[in-house]
Amino acid sequence: MTVSDVVELEGHIIDSGLMERAFTVVMDLGGEFDIEEFEVGTTKTKESYCRMRVIADDEESLNPILHELHQSGATLAAPTDATLTPAPADNVVPDGFYSTTNHPTDVRIDGEWVGVDDIEMDCAIVVDRGGDAVTAETKVLNGIEADDLVVTGDAGIRVKPPERPRDASGPFGFMQGGVSAERPSASLIRDIAEAIAETKAQGGNVLCVAGPAVIHAGGGPALARLVREGYVDAVSAGNGFAVHDMERSMYGTSLGMDVETMEHPRKGHKHHIYTISEVIRAGGIEAAVEDGLITEGVMYECVANDRDFVLAGSIRDDGPLPDTITDAVEAQNAIREQARDADLVLMLSSLLHSVAVGNCLPSTTRTVCVDINPATVTQLLDRGSAQAVGMVTDVGTFVPMLAEELLE
Amino acid sequence: MTVSDVVELEGHIIDSGLMERAFTVVMDLGGEFDIEEFEVGTTKTKESYCRMRVIADDEESLNPILHELHQSGATLAAPTDATLTPAPADNVVPDGFYSTTNHPTDVRIDGEWVGVDDIEMDCAIVVDRGGDAVTAETKVLNGIEADDLVVTGDAGIRVKPPERPRDASGPFGFMQGGVSAERPSASLIRDIAEAIAETKAQGGNVLCVAGPAVIHAGGGPALARLVREGYVDAVSAGNGFAVHDMERSMYGTSLGMDVETMEHPRKGHKHHIYTISEVIRAGGIEAAVEDGLITEGVMYECVANDRDFVLAGSIRDDGPLPDTITDAVEAQNAIREQARDADLVLMLSSLLHSVAVGNCLPSTTRTVCVDINPATVTQLLDRGSAQAVGMVTDVGTFVPMLAEELLE
Amino acid sequence: MTVSDVVELEGHIIDSGLMERAFTVVMDLGGEFDIEEFEVGTTKTKESYCRMRVIADDEESLNPILHELHQSGATLAAPTDATLTPAPADNVVPDGFYSTTNHPTDVRIDGEWVGVDDIEMDCAIVVDRGGDAVTAETKVLNGIEADDLVVTGDAGIRVKPPERPRDASGPFGFMQGGVSAERPSASLIRDIAEAIAETKAQGGNVLCVAGPAVIHAGGGPALARLVREGYVDAVSAGNGFAVHDMERSMYGTSLGMDVETMEHPRKGHKHHIYTISEVIRAGGIEAAVEDGLITEGVMYECVANDRDFVLAGSIRDDGPLPDTITDAVEAQNAIREQARDADLVLMLSSLLHSVAVGNCLPSTTRTVCVDINPATVTQLLDRGSAQAVGMVTDVGTFVPMLAEELLE
Amino acid sequence: MTVSDVVELEGHIIDSGLMERAFTVVMDLGGEFDIEEFEVGTTKTKESYCRMRVIADDEESLNPILHELHQSGATLAAPTDATLTPAPADNVVPDGFYSTTNHPTDVRIDGEWVGVDDIEMDCAIVVDRGGDAVTAETKVLNGIEADDLVVTGDAGIRVKPPERPRDASGPFGFMQGGVSAERPSASLIRDIAEAIAETKAQGGNVLCVAGPAVIHAGGGPALARLVREGYVDAVSAGNGFAVHDMERSMYGTSLGMDVETMEHPRKGHKHHIYTISEVIRAGGIEAAVEDGLITEGVMYECVANDRDFVLAGSIRDDGPLPDTITDAVEAQNAIREQARDADLVLMLSSLLHSVAVGNCLPSTTRTVCVDINPATVTQLLDRGSAQAVGMVTDVGTFVPMLAEELLE
Repeated sequence: MTVSDVVELEGHIIDSGLMERAFTVVMDLGGEFDIEEFEVGTTKTKESYCRMRVIADDEESLNPILHELHQSGATLAAPTDATLTPAPADNVVPDGFYSTTNHPTDVRIDGEWVGVDDIEMDCAIVVDRGGDAVTAETKVLNGIEADDLVVTGDAGIRVKPPERPRDASGPFGFMQGGVSAERPSASLIRDIAEAIAETKAQGGNVLCVAGPAVIHAGGGPALARLVREGYVDAVSAGNGFAVHDMERSMYGTSLGMDVETMEHPRKGHKHHIYTISEVIRAGGIEAAVEDGLITEGVMYECVANDRDFVLAGSIRDDGPLPDTITDAVEAQNAIREQARDADLVLMLSSLLHSVAVGNCLPSTTRTVCVDINPATVTQLLDRGSAQAVGMVTDVGTFVPMLAEELLE
Repeated sequence: MTVSDVVELEGHIIDSGLMERAFTVVMDLGGEFDIEEFEVGTTKTKESYCRMRVIADDEESLNPILHELHQSGATLAAPTDATLTPAPADNVVPDGFYSTTNHPTDVRIDGEWVGVDDIEMDCAIVVDRGGDAVTAETKVLNGIEADDLVVTGDAGIRVKPPERPRDASGPFGFMQGGVSAERPSASLIRDIAEAIAETKAQGGNVLCVAGPAVIHAGGGPALARLVREGYVDAVSAGNGFAVHDMERSMYGTSLGMDVETMEHPRKGHKHHIYTISEVIRAGGIEAAVEDGLITEGVMYECVANDRDFVLAGSIRDDGPLPDTITDAVEAQNAIREQARDADLVLMLSSLLHSVAVGNCLPSTTRTVCVDINPATVTQLLDRGSAQAVGMVTDVGTFVPMLAEELLE
Repeated sequence: MTVSDVVELEGHIIDSGLMERAFTVVMDLGGEFDIEEFEVGTTKTKESYCRMRVIADDEESLNPILHELHQSGATLAAPTDATLTPAPADNVVPDGFYSTTNHPTDVRIDGEWVGVDDIEMDCAIVVDRGGDAVTAETKVLNGIEADDLVVTGDAGIRVKPPERPRDASGPFGFMQGGVSAERPSASLIRDIAEAIAETKAQGGNVLCVAGPAVIHAGGGPALARLVREGYVDAVSAGNGFAVHDMERSMYGTSLGMDVETMEHPRKGHKHHIYTISEVIRAGGIEAAVEDGLITEGVMYECVANDRDFVLAGSIRDDGPLPDTITDAVEAQNAIREQARDADLVLMLSSLLHSVAVGNCLPSTTRTVCVDINPATVTQLLDRGSAQAVGMVTDVGTFVPMLAEELLE
Repeated sequence: MTVSDVVELEGHIIDSGLMERAFTVVMDLGGEFDIEEFEVGTTKTKESYCRMRVIADDEESLNPILHELHQSGATLAAPTDATLTPAPADNVVPDGFYSTTNHPTDVRIDGEWVGVDDIEMDCAIVVDRGGDAVTAETKVLNGIEADDLVVTGDAGIRVKPPERPRDASGPFGFMQGGVSAERPSASLIRDIAEAIAETKAQGGNVLCVAGPAVIHAGGGPALARLVREGYVDAVSAGNGFAVHDMERSMYGTSLGMDVETMEHPRKGHKHHIYTISEVIRAGGIEAAVEDGLITEGVMYECVANDRDFVLAGSIRDDGPLPDTITDAVEAQNAIREQARDADLVLMLSSLLHSVAVGNCLPSTTRTVCVDINPATVTQLLDRGSAQAVGMVTDVGTFVPMLAEELLE
């Protein structure tokens, strides 16, 4: 005795890798398939369609196959409504809750497909029938409240993984997981500059996630210019980044070293602590800018040009600054809001913050990851973003060259 | 016109590198020196003594030289009392505050040398004259309260950098900054096991800082045994480590992959979220152990054997668990307490938490850093610990081999 | 006006990624396609078939598309004989020569498909009509002789890229380019041991490519046991590996450091030079073993058990040993012969030699790549091998654990 | 019963680390010392002097201590002539041969100190009494001929390790083993440019060791300009570098990818093989330039401007080119000659060739190491060069920025 169910796939399912993945999922998880119908898109603009019966030994084997197929864009051929189960308590999901991908997703409620708002991976979907219209949104575990109606099982859910663009995609490789070091750096920087310019030209929002290495490596002034000139709309960073940036403005040093002459490369942290202390005394970064304490740099330009910034705290911080959000849950929520607004995210030498931002991004947001460590770039790109480019380079040369491309 | 001051160095100052450093500091910072007296320890147990006049063009040039010499163990020949200045406000240091090293330090108050408690780098020294005796302790910026008496300037302060041990120091190289990959792994593991056994035999406390890679790489069961058998007294980790460890106990998987068969290596995070959700429902890790939900693993052994653990939150956490300290400042304080109790710290594949713990350690605590990334090991060792060993290896093979050495 | 041609694909072309790749090639290179026939394999054992017309603006655009489709396993629907052009001179290929992939390949001569011997990537195919039967083989550039009949163009060539195995493939991922660090090390080592045991049980040949780090990290004795016990049939290494291995036998040191006690870690190279000097005096490695100069280690076991070894020279060698082939072309030919005999290749911490061996391997040879540097593992795996596993770990712990799995 | 001997050290022995090293050597190797005289240089220009008796249990323990002290710059207080022993056979050193450091060295023959020519590490010293004057030179093992008079033991040898410069040394850190990523890239590039300009202004010779990544990353045109304008006098590279560079000139591609548009990033190696084939047909690189086949790039500028280049073969080469020296020993000799002429060596993304060149350099040659992999930079710097700077950056951005600093 076997059990089976029928799923459908539709779209550019061959060249976007969805058919390959569907077959692989079934075979890897020990199932069988029977293609009931297959229509191939005969030219590059025509879509394909596949109806496939999936067969397994028992329900216990079939369910994970269906779940994986689902997450890969297949839908049950006979759609039913999504199952809704009340959360048993605050921060607790009901048994069998549906854990989201980062792809656009719909749920079927009362026979209608409802788009899920604020899509983000590894969340629950909570349905609200209270208003005029039925709505659905993602919630992370700490956002779940008792009796929230949480989607469970895989029925009545439709996921849209990204499709390969119909035209050649330039440096923004389609679903590329790896990173080639074998590309001319200057050409790649030019392409990234074009993508940023294009995003801005379309009224889009560019979020820059920046680590302290940007400042140490001397990329601060160029990043500050990009903020001032409006190529960067928002900054996501940590306490350390902001302190190093402001230390440079207040003392001309970064971790005690003169950033121009590289003299006195002592390890002394004194300027670092002073900077925090003085900003605390002023009452925060905005106040320190207004008081004339901070007169240049990335944080200065954020305040002066009213760019949104989020500083998230961590356990290795000195201080911290009054502006740093020390609670991880609050900080994550602030990061989430920025991430949702972004159309292109530029991640510069910051593994921790880039992972945190990346966790909140839908697969439709363009991402650019720059780091000197290839493992970091690979890890950041490996999130199924449809349009992503990774570059293993030195932020200290990258940011100035990027600014030159955009501004000159 | 020049200005000058006289400093003294004493001890095994040649082979511990202090004389070399003293000469280098003076020359690098543009000063001159005149050796007024030099007595070399003629045999390996005898100490040396140097009295040196340091000359610079003006006070502005002389002061950083004296400050650096200070931090390297020189003291002013004519000691005066330390200068105490009240902190102008909460979380604000007075001008010219003395920023600590991680070496044992004394301050001179009313003609007496007083040891500074809880030495830790990049802190202020706060003196308390209120009790029966004068006391001095380090305070981080967020611990400073208005009117705290903070030590300013370099006068009246004595720093004791570590000296090279008189006997050959085995694998715990003296002040080694780098890491050699060219060492036999099994021999090095044997030496680390001996250092742990020795620390335990002397009644010492072993703190293990562990990253999630310990669990992914299959090192969980061996680490759990070390906790159970008392070779690890305390665990410092993040939310992710604890969740992966408990997922393994509850579902036999790590990030959804069966850790024995390596089957179903899907990216689904579902078990991960379930684990957190169930522990939340139980009311926390201890309750989940008591309820029989968690029956093995590192967290289980910590609860069952009453080992201290600190879980510090970060912005990339799912959940988090009720036990995770989400506020970075609170978490840092908890880490600080653990770090002060430790006699040997074993850092396993966790850059963020290891840096946080390392920041709180005096240079006298033995440290062992294990990571697959040589840059991580170098960064962690580069903190002037007197007795440190770094090993670039795979935690998935290291922890089982270490446990075998210690337990069999 | 456009030009077009018709190609066919056959086999498990969807789940092996060939259809996806075919569509992508056409689109990326600016062409159009028109699917004339498509039959999907309706169950997992049935093969699929696709006949596709490829359209481009002109011949100059069409040719590279056809060439890429070819290399991806498509064949021209109306097969013609391969074009043969005499090489104009020694070491010179004719215009338009066909550059091979590492996949099994046939060429059509006089209406018959002839298998190409010794398939290897980036070679020319030379056809020999002189014997009883027509034969075809690959030749590297320095093997080409004037008037050799070299295949040019893409007509009359058939390439068989690897297909995804019909059963779940265990740790030997199908065409995986990347490497996951998130796998339990001990389980992965167990799987690699099984693959080696399986290869040996089937009468297969295991080639081990080993770098000097195997000896430094203490993996020498375990590798020597694997050679002795017949789990390694052949060794490919450099001069340095052999010298370090024999230095260990002669002096108990590696680069002057005692490999057990790790004492005297001086950088002195004296033992290294002595080892070479003594082996030269003896007349070579075999003679040194027979003279009783070398009594244990990998090279000893190779000689004692008559295992084939190739030592290839490089510009950073000391000495070199009399056994080291100093000419790069000769050494490459020796490596090529070993590679062709191998059924499984175990690459241990040796980028240079592993690349050299990998260059000579057909895509059907199983490969295992072990290195502490993830970039090295990624680079070595990225050659389209059908069955490959990469492991980022420490050879100093890997080799002993592997030997224990296989021998105990 | 103990044995002892007396050694002397002289010069800036404290701040150059020689005293520290001397004490450490004695203690690490289980000896004792007794300082018989110590005069400290009282100001920064005055030298120090130390006479120290070294004591050990027996000759067997004392000898390695004396050997290490020697290599660290100590000399026996009662100098005797060097011991000369004939080499027993070609390529064989006599027992107890003295293995060189890379520091300037003298040997005492007939009561006179004779400078050793062509100093290089891990060599033997061969003395020639045949001419008008006694001469001494280093020989590698394969250069030794039977009956060569080889220096054995440590007596009568004087080594001069580099001393810390008396003025602050800028970015060229004194004997720095590690590499800080925490330095502003643009400032560091400016300093490297200054060092090159300074070397040229003094009539010095700049040797560039370049890997293929320079071309892939787009640094070729800038490097070609540096060759043309005379900032690079000689190039040391491999077959792959030259082929990629000339492929770019002939086809505008690198490994088949258009280096400007990054289009057609296929893995096909065809242009690569064609380039070699065409250069072979022309008769070599010089002929190919003269024939107009190669019209730009690094190799073109070398030929056009008569810069010396050495192409050393390796086992992973395609082709190779007629100009590539395929024999490792011959190639090493060619590299050695270039290295001896160099006053500054710029190592760009080439581990294998940089190690080979570095092996031949005396410690007095300035070296600059640039690589994206910090482990490579650390390994290359760790050779006791007196004036070395390492930079972890992207050659694709580094070379153009360096050329801009030097040429504009």
